[in-house]
Amino acid sequence: MTNSTTKPPQSFGVLLFPGFALLDACGPLELLNGLSSVVPMTVSLIAVDSLEPVATMVPIETLSDDFRKRVESQQPLAVQRLCPTHTLETCPPLDVLLIPGGFGVPNAAKDERVLKFITESKAQTIITVCNGTGILAATGLLDGKKEVTSGRPQVNWVQKARWVHEGRYWTSSGISAGMDVVAAYIRETFGEQIGELVPDILEYTPELNPDNDPFVDAWKKYLPPNQTE
Amino acid sequence: MTNSTTKPPQSFGVLLFPGFALLDACGPLELLNGLSSVVPMTVSLIAVDSLEPVATMVPIETLSDDFRKRVESQQPLAVQRLCPTHTLETCPPLDVLLIPGGFGVPNAAKDERVLKFITESKAQTIITVCNGTGILAATGLLDGKKEVTSGRPQVNWVQKARWVHEGRYWTSSGISAGMDVVAAYIRETFGEQIGELVPDILEYTPELNPDNDPFVDAWKKYLPPNQTE
Repeated sequence: MTNSTTKPPQSFGVLLFPGFALLDACGPLELLNGLSSVVPMTVSLIAVDSLEPVATMVPIETLSDDFRKRVESQQPLAVQRLCPTHTLETCPPLDVLLIPGGFGVPNAAKDERVLKFITESKAQTIITVCNGTGILAATGLLDGKKEVTSGRPQVNWVQKARWVHEGRYWTSSGISAGMDVVAAYIRETFGEQIGELVPDILEYTPELNPDNDPFVDAWKKYLPPNQTE
Repeated sequence: MTNSTTKPPQSFGVLLFPGFALLDACGPLELLNGLSSVVPMTVSLIAVDSLEPVATMVPIETLSDDFRKRVESQQPLAVQRLCPTHTLETCPPLDVLLIPGGFGVPNAAKDERVLKFITESKAQTIITVCNGTGILAATGLLDGKKEVTSGRPQVNWVQKARWVHEGRYWTSSGISAGMDVVAAYIRETFGEQIGELVPDILEYTPELNPDNDPFVDAWKKYLPPNQTE
């Protein structure tokens, strides 16, 4: 529940690192666009170090082994580029920071500038989507907390959840779960009326149950038969 | 059903006019990104006349009366900019053209260059999202056909539908319905296996019933009491 003495959040920011996943950022962004029609607020798109457009893919040779093998075994992926409004240096103080996932996460999670920005952020809320949680976890801020997905052993990872909310952190499952976690955050922070209106503007039916994650099971059908257990 | 003599679509394009709605374009784009990992294909982002990034808002004085009043009565909306890869002139021949909606639709629907591009397109499939259908309708290509939403009197508009498929045209309802219509198009065109895999990559649960449109009724709650009938 929102503390009644807390100032309503006004300054929202989305981190745009090279290789971010398009819908991880743009699904939440469209909900924030809808929210911005009824609440005074700003939305910053924050690139690491330049105002050049940021691409949804990184050069294949910079990918981690796991991702490189997966991408090499596939067709060349379509790529899009989104324009940042700020860099880590020029970004205004944020009330809410959203960190998307994507192929670029392993690189971003090793970038000291990114980790320092997150660690020093005074944001009252940090929301992560998909493997973007790995960037937040790399700061150590999640140690001892419950979060979605897997990675750092110090974190109490939750295997099956659409999203997990603990304190200032909201972490969510794959890609489109980013829309559900942001819709849930808006409901809790701005109340039921705005919380219903904003997804309605998008004609989006958000998942309301954070524990309903059908994709843990759905993914089993893509595993080789000897790995289905 | 797909005609078995039809070549599988390989060249996809998304029209990016000033004032396009972010999720109308980026929801379908992320599904196409997923499809591109299993099918050889290209995705072009097509601006009208320059390779400058295209914004999700247009100058307020260029909005149609209806949209201008709505925007003026609200907070200033957050705006994003996406980079095109081509212009109408340089775009490769397309198999599939997707037209998003947005505040810029009334302007785009009066732009002769846009209408000529659509009218002369040899695309086997044209998909529209939200009020983007109005751009397609302005060409006259929909006259006599069944389509979602309202506008041109010559078109047989369907009041309540998530999407409508008739011949080469797939038209869909508001914003996030774009993901459902593209998921439906992928299922029908590439078969059940790829049709399930692609939304699973996004951890997205698509609406499978084109007639299920809860938002026609949901919107009634925002009308003044004397307009609820």
